[in-house]
Amino acid sequence: MAPRILFSAPEGQWPLWRPHLLAAFADAGLDVTLTDDPSGPWTFDYVVYAPGGPVDDFAPFERVKAVLSLWAGVETIVGDSSIVVPLCRMVDEGLTRGMVEWVTAHVMRYHLGTDAHVLGQDGVWRHGVVPPLAPDRAVGILGLGELGRAVAATLAGLGFRVTGWSRGPRELAGVETRSGADGLDDVLAEAEILVLLLPATAATEGLIDARALARLPRGARIINAGRGPLIDDAALLKALDNGHVAHATLDVFRDEPLPPSHPFWAHPQITVTPHVAAATRPASASLAVAENVRRGEAGLAFLHVVNRAEGY
Amino acid sequence: MAPRILFSAPEGQWPLWRPHLLAAFADAGLDVTLTDDPSGPWTFDYVVYAPGGPVDDFAPFERVKAVLSLWAGVETIVGDSSIVVPLCRMVDEGLTRGMVEWVTAHVMRYHLGTDAHVLGQDGVWRHGVVPPLAPDRAVGILGLGELGRAVAATLAGLGFRVTGWSRGPRELAGVETRSGADGLDDVLAEAEILVLLLPATAATEGLIDARALARLPRGARIINAGRGPLIDDAALLKALDNGHVAHATLDVFRDEPLPPSHPFWAHPQITVTPHVAAATRPASASLAVAENVRRGEAGLAFLHVVNRAEGY
Repeated sequence: MAPRILFSAPEGQWPLWRPHLLAAFADAGLDVTLTDDPSGPWTFDYVVYAPGGPVDDFAPFERVKAVLSLWAGVETIVGDSSIVVPLCRMVDEGLTRGMVEWVTAHVMRYHLGTDAHVLGQDGVWRHGVVPPLAPDRAVGILGLGELGRAVAATLAGLGFRVTGWSRGPRELAGVETRSGADGLDDVLAEAEILVLLLPATAATEGLIDARALARLPRGARIINAGRGPLIDDAALLKALDNGHVAHATLDVFRDEPLPPSHPFWAHPQITVTPHVAAATRPASASLAVAENVRRGEAGLAFLHVVNRAEGY
Repeated sequence: MAPRILFSAPEGQWPLWRPHLLAAFADAGLDVTLTDDPSGPWTFDYVVYAPGGPVDDFAPFERVKAVLSLWAGVETIVGDSSIVVPLCRMVDEGLTRGMVEWVTAHVMRYHLGTDAHVLGQDGVWRHGVVPPLAPDRAVGILGLGELGRAVAATLAGLGFRVTGWSRGPRELAGVETRSGADGLDDVLAEAEILVLLLPATAATEGLIDARALARLPRGARIINAGRGPLIDDAALLKALDNGHVAHATLDVFRDEPLPPSHPFWAHPQITVTPHVAAATRPASASLAVAENVRRGEAGLAFLHVVNRAEGY
């Protein structure tokens, strides 16, 4: 019998995803029944899932083989004890590429100080100090997972002096890597531009606090493309106000959408972007969903299964 | 006898260049006399030259072996009939890298629309249309010389769909190339982002005129990192005003510094930058100067000799 697949995501997503998912299942040679109607939960073999849809309890999904997240970040669902089957994160070539492009754009923006021109068209021809070239610019990347590794490789390819940090040791061509608490201090101490690409877990909550910010060289810039809780908001505001940190570009927040009254919006040294760094793109992400269903039907191990203990 | 080298450039340049030139000559194993004092022009073997310095007539430099330009662009000197020896352009790894970085920064800025965030911190969380990824973004590059080739290779490496144009046929890995008048029309017709990296010559004067602008797809963005005269200023303003061209970032102008009253400064769809795309950096450029002196003294052909008939 054709596997039954439930699509559960916020309103409006179904028409965007349906054609791409159907095409991806067809391309994978899979005959499936795909619906957004959650009735009869015990009949489904897979749930394609994003927070904010109709499903909030997996207990009635008695025969489900896997929950396939549409998002890379699974912090809102990873602790859900009603999921007793593999939970798979989205690892999508389009999402990875989107993240690489977004971080590259903002690193280049800080590296060359282009905001001064975008914001300062005042008729004054300023020939200031020639900025350093990429090999003389230190970029620190916290997090060397799928996304962090891709970003680090691209920035190293552009010539930047890249140092990457991860909890456990990792090697990466063209990139200096560090790990552990001492390694983190080393990376922070050098990073003129600091890129955050860690997941939100108990271990990363508030990692960028007053102490960590004080380790950065004076005038550092911060790009948060990971998750909002990595940063202690009040400590960041203080470091910006006293000039130790020059600027921050933040795509992720503890509360999203970021409330209009949050001080980040009005701060002259902060650029808020509305969680756009790496959109999941239905065309490429659907291929990842179909591949995991194919593997499940073939009795193979699922890809990108979340380690529930570590939280990602 | 040690070759005598005159440094002739605008006031203030000598102290910036002197230590780097001396170090470069020493590293090349050359024993030279280097001065910024132009008296006794018939005694000099080489002139290291930028416009705006004390030398404006090369006739008295009877025994000079070559004129070594500090700038990549030689349009102000190429027609000087008093130069009867090889005139060498600056080709400097630092300058090339600087240009690659500057163009990459502004291509990324247009590609992702980051100005909307830099300029629009209004507290509204806008989740708009997901922009295309680099492989779905067409970038056209006019000019495949030293700089154009390096820029094209880097943008292709970032995944962009790059088409490059040059007067005569050229091949470049990972980049589609076109040449001639028909080829130019093809490149213009596809370029969502158009990068100008041509030299200023009789053949390129006003190349980007009303007709060329009309060939661009509606909403195209233009980056001029070549020379001001490539663009017909009035035609560009008209194409911006009628919305056919969405935005332009201009680093070079017919008059530099761009006068405060020039309409480019105040135009909301133009970003003016003060000729900063590729600064000649004394440390790396001095190596290029020393290499050419070494070649001259060894009886070898000079590098990067300007073709006076073609003008670059």
